[in-house]
Amino acid sequence: MKMIKNSLGREIPEFVEGIGDLIPYQGVWEYIKKTQSKHLHARACYGIGKGIEKLLPDIKTALERCNIKDGMTLSFHHHFRAGDETLMQVIAAVNEMRIKDITVFSSSLTSSHDGLIKYIENGTVSRIFTSGLREKLGKFITDGKLKIPAVIRTHGGRARSIALGEVPIDIAFVAAPSSDILGNSNGIEGPSACGSLGYAMVDALYADKTVIVTDNIVDYPLHPASIPEWQVDFVVKVDRIGNPAKIATGSTRITKNPIDLAIAQSASDFIARTPYFMEGMSFQVGAGGASLAAAKFMKEAMKERNIKGSFGIGGITSYMVELLEEGYLNTLFDVQSFDAVVAKSIAKNPRHIEIPATYYSDPFTKNCVVNNLDIVILAALQVDADFNVNVMTSNTGVLMGASGGHPDTAAGAKLTIIVCPSFRARVPSIVDKVHTVITPGESVDVIVTERGIAINPQRSDLIEFMKKSKLPIRDIHEIKEDVEKLTDKPEEVEFEDRIVALVEYRDGTIIDTIKALKCD
Amino acid sequence: MKMIKNSLGREIPEFVEGIGDLIPYQGVWEYIKKTQSKHLHARACYGIGKGIEKLLPDIKTALERCNIKDGMTLSFHHHFRAGDETLMQVIAAVNEMRIKDITVFSSSLTSSHDGLIKYIENGTVSRIFTSGLREKLGKFITDGKLKIPAVIRTHGGRARSIALGEVPIDIAFVAAPSSDILGNSNGIEGPSACGSLGYAMVDALYADKTVIVTDNIVDYPLHPASIPEWQVDFVVKVDRIGNPAKIATGSTRITKNPIDLAIAQSASDFIARTPYFMEGMSFQVGAGGASLAAAKFMKEAMKERNIKGSFGIGGITSYMVELLEEGYLNTLFDVQSFDAVVAKSIAKNPRHIEIPATYYSDPFTKNCVVNNLDIVILAALQVDADFNVNVMTSNTGVLMGASGGHPDTAAGAKLTIIVCPSFRARVPSIVDKVHTVITPGESVDVIVTERGIAINPQRSDLIEFMKKSKLPIRDIHEIKEDVEKLTDKPEEVEFEDRIVALVEYRDGTIIDTIKALKCD
Repeated sequence: MKMIKNSLGREIPEFVEGIGDLIPYQGVWEYIKKTQSKHLHARACYGIGKGIEKLLPDIKTALERCNIKDGMTLSFHHHFRAGDETLMQVIAAVNEMRIKDITVFSSSLTSSHDGLIKYIENGTVSRIFTSGLREKLGKFITDGKLKIPAVIRTHGGRARSIALGEVPIDIAFVAAPSSDILGNSNGIEGPSACGSLGYAMVDALYADKTVIVTDNIVDYPLHPASIPEWQVDFVVKVDRIGNPAKIATGSTRITKNPIDLAIAQSASDFIARTPYFMEGMSFQVGAGGASLAAAKFMKEAMKERNIKGSFGIGGITSYMVELLEEGYLNTLFDVQSFDAVVAKSIAKNPRHIEIPATYYSDPFTKNCVVNNLDIVILAALQVDADFNVNVMTSNTGVLMGASGGHPDTAAGAKLTIIVCPSFRARVPSIVDKVHTVITPGESVDVIVTERGIAINPQRSDLIEFMKKSKLPIRDIHEIKEDVEKLTDKPEEVEFEDRIVALVEYRDGTIIDTIKALKCD
Repeated sequence: MKMIKNSLGREIPEFVEGIGDLIPYQGVWEYIKKTQSKHLHARACYGIGKGIEKLLPDIKTALERCNIKDGMTLSFHHHFRAGDETLMQVIAAVNEMRIKDITVFSSSLTSSHDGLIKYIENGTVSRIFTSGLREKLGKFITDGKLKIPAVIRTHGGRARSIALGEVPIDIAFVAAPSSDILGNSNGIEGPSACGSLGYAMVDALYADKTVIVTDNIVDYPLHPASIPEWQVDFVVKVDRIGNPAKIATGSTRITKNPIDLAIAQSASDFIARTPYFMEGMSFQVGAGGASLAAAKFMKEAMKERNIKGSFGIGGITSYMVELLEEGYLNTLFDVQSFDAVVAKSIAKNPRHIEIPATYYSDPFTKNCVVNNLDIVILAALQVDADFNVNVMTSNTGVLMGASGGHPDTAAGAKLTIIVCPSFRARVPSIVDKVHTVITPGESVDVIVTERGIAINPQRSDLIEFMKKSKLPIRDIHEIKEDVEKLTDKPEEVEFEDRIVALVEYRDGTIIDTIKALKCD
């Protein structure tokens, strides 16, 4: 395998069997600039005429009607997160039909998809394209048990890959909490209401075939339709598509951890002292305890200073809805709702706007809304002295996170803040070199820990600005050394040469690879 | 030029210089069925990164920034109808820049575009793709003064040609009554509010470059956005984009003509006796005096029978809004608003839904809403004994109408009614052979005139059904002979061999050609 170094010095294969040619990462904006004049043809889906019957009795019939074949790419979305029940129903039906070598192309994968392991083992599934990998499936892939490397994409990069036709979707499955019999569907009504269907909106527009899977058929015409009937081939009614109660689990739960709360407060204090904290500012908070909590402290600071913001983006939590309702923000752009109650806000508030992932963060569009962001607050599993961030692999090298919108928002926002406890369970989070670069340091401005705040040296403007403040601004190496004194020396993790996952940066270049753990 | 007969027996050239290969019409559904498994790639537009300044001072700067070149295709929409002021501003700027051989690809052209003549004469414009041609420009083209034949497309066919990449749009110009500085724009706010932007929504999605031309810049983020910022390259502020007071002119004015009203009443009486007139029915009325007036009589019949409909489509007039507000319809799908006051209804009523032309009537999508129609009432300039309809050329062969949604809705609806006075100004409307077939008789069920109602013999079910009624059901030949006794013998119109316009059926095949008038 011929390797090439990307601009971060990471070794990237030029070609991977089963995936194809790879383009190395070249910098946050470089590759986008070079390719911006290429007007490629995306996949448009053309179907059928008059009198079609779209409503089908079950998923197997839909697969048959879509002419499912070995080697096809099936797309899914993860708005139900740990509560998703649709992807596994579809793959179980594919398995029953003895179809092989399917590519599962999901906006992310969660604990609800650990069942994929047996379908990888029996050859039903041979490729995984996703933003997140965690739990048993993450460990399984880290152990090298998926033959073709998984491909990790950001939410924006996934939208880009679809719109450019790089990943043609043969069949898109949309778990829709409400649909009429012609496929007009949304996520805001019905017993399984999950909120935004932002990722699925892209799939439905570009996929060859689109199948709505719903547990709630309503009268025609359903309105508002997140996915309109003209993009839908078939509608399948099932007993249940997912459990919305499980959306707000894991990284979207609000923290009670006092260290996380202290970090969130500190991040908010920092932001409130920057020139970005002003009337009309926009912001986003990512998943993860401290970053979600920061929204709460931001509000207090806004109240104190009598400042009103412009728009918020997300990953929308109840906190963000509160900010909208109380007038601290005038608009929410919602690609994914982080708890089920958020759906009600989309339904009733015209300024709570559901948006497709293309609009959220596809870097090749004529601008995605993350590019308009003033401030984003994001979490990290590891950071390094170059401000690179890992949100994908554990300190022992195991897949346990998601790229998500992290690299997208970091690149787009004017001020990118990483909130991160300096160590966890006696293991430092600030390291020499992160296991996996998900978000390049070039796009990260500030790292906030409970032991001080480090500003990226390239942001001399911020460093200068903060000289007058009493905030604990420190060199990142200093914080790192402090932490190393307090913690155990992290065990050396040994890897095999074999690549188990490729990390795509949002522009389609490869920013890093993940290798198999050496088993003793 | 090699000619080929289409399934209606009309002679079609296989190839036209400057246009390319042509596919002959083969029947309402045949070609669609044959090509439905072809999944073609439509144009997706990829642009730019962070920090772009979209707001430009004038149209000329926008043309420069879009790298305008000789031979490019510029798209426009006609929601302002006779009040449009944007297309001519753009072409005047193109002319000033000495750019040549532009294709003007507009959803339609009206009297407000007669100014194009001088730009055709001086070589600025060399191709015209449109739905309508009328007034001085229609006469000019009928006289053979445009070198390359004009191409007439239906609204659905235009959307199809764009989505399939058959007509790649280099620059789409959208006259938007409101826009923010990043291009989120709509037609429902501002001093020039015109209502739906349904045709432009397709252009913006697929064009290489999209330019919003507006006379009303609002705060970011504008919502609801008919066209979202991720599809927009540039925004230009001009003094005025159009005069909404001129939208409701010509064929969208409600008639006071007693014969038209009598025909509308008769059509409504016919419909009320069919099985389609029932709870939950959907309907559309086309442009033209008698068809618009029919909506009024339909309402009276619904009231009398205590029937509530489902959805209405349009070309939406105030009459249709009244039906929605009074509960006779539960939803309006609006691709084009036929008077300026309709904009207010879209703004305030969530069941008045703006839709793109793709959803309205693109025949290759996974279904367009015209396919769900129960009843459509349409006008005609000429009909013939085979129920073919001409809405494009006058009895003397001059271009003076528009294909519009006529063939789309006729094909889609379960019951297609043509309302047409049997003669106008002593010239029969029922002829042996229409000058130009726009809508094939195969998709027309009933012709209602003031001298009787003719049912298409292929609809034996309707003939049987109406036997018990007291309505004046007559053979179309009988009506025709009656009329001929009352009218002057129409002058023979002589044509040259030269083709001045090609009429595309909605599926992209050529249904007819229009030839130059022989000048004495």
